[in-house]
Amino acid sequence: MATQVKATPRERLLEAAATLTYHDGVGIGVEALCKAAGVSKRSMYQLFESKDELLAVSLEERASAFAARLLPAADDDRPPRERILHVFEQVELQAGAPEFRGCRYLAVQIELKDESHPASQVARRVKGNLTAFFRSEAEHGGASDPDLLARQLSLVFDGANARAGIRADSLAGLIAPTVGTLLEGAGVR
Amino acid sequence: MATQVKATPRERLLEAAATLTYHDGVGIGVEALCKAAGVSKRSMYQLFESKDELLAVSLEERASAFAARLLPAADDDRPPRERILHVFEQVELQAGAPEFRGCRYLAVQIELKDESHPASQVARRVKGNLTAFFRSEAEHGGASDPDLLARQLSLVFDGANARAGIRADSLAGLIAPTVGTLLEGAGVR
Repeated sequence: MATQVKATPRERLLEAAATLTYHDGVGIGVEALCKAAGVSKRSMYQLFESKDELLAVSLEERASAFAARLLPAADDDRPPRERILHVFEQVELQAGAPEFRGCRYLAVQIELKDESHPASQVARRVKGNLTAFFRSEAEHGGASDPDLLARQLSLVFDGANARAGIRADSLAGLIAPTVGTLLEGAGVR
Repeated sequence: MATQVKATPRERLLEAAATLTYHDGVGIGVEALCKAAGVSKRSMYQLFESKDELLAVSLEERASAFAARLLPAADDDRPPRERILHVFEQVELQAGAPEFRGCRYLAVQIELKDESHPASQVARRVKGNLTAFFRSEAEHGGASDPDLLARQLSLVFDGANARAGIRADSLAGLIAPTVGTLLEGAGVR
């Protein structure tokens, strides 16, 4: 039998913030967050300065899991083309889950509409790391214009997440040919 | 001197809903909407059943302006390739405006996270019409797989709007080569 390590109030608040925001949006109230976490508002404000800070920290703490679920493993020595396609295969797989609502780091920025919000800043940095991954692979893969290809792949990543998140597209049979055509166009084979 | 036709309470509410939702998100309160429109809450509820209905109608009423700002004119007889590129040139132009926050019909669906919401349903239909435009042009342009090309162009449209809306990308020098490569890949020249 597995033994469960009891989560601390801080951990429960971060989990509630991540889960409820992803499901219901950034407008979720402090009451609802505290209720879901089983933590009093008083305790919440002892742990976090504000709901904004709680949201920013919850996004920060998910950043390594986000990268791990998308990027190839450290010992993955496939060529850049395959490593880039790996990311998009993961998006397509993730989009099949019933609870999928697209990339949380994109959604939070669209919802907050405020670049100076601490959560927007975290989201921007996390997505900047993904673009940097694409840029690096594009360069190693001999892309004619690595900056352009990295921007194109980031565009497809966000477009795919947005459309699958709102159920406008299942992504099936869409992502691989789209990314393949862009890689081809950039001379990455 | 231009004479101004005084807007009715209904028109002012629709304008306030469209403007404030675009700027601040769907979480904007009824109080704020009524205040911006200079209309009492009582009057609002005589005109609209709910805030949800007000939002849905405001999106519906913007639909023809949305299409007019993006699609080529009725008498535009350029070939399909140029007509498709025209849409993306408009997106790039629109993205340069300081108040630009991306496509309102995408944002509202991401924010509401509820496909059954009346505003989500309007947004879905409006964007479906754009995909249908791409599909029709793709077919006239001899695309090898018009359905795939229409999905790709919709993906790029939403990705571009999302990234420009959150200021992650200016779109300059990005959209034309991306769409060009996809058109080329589909055999639309």
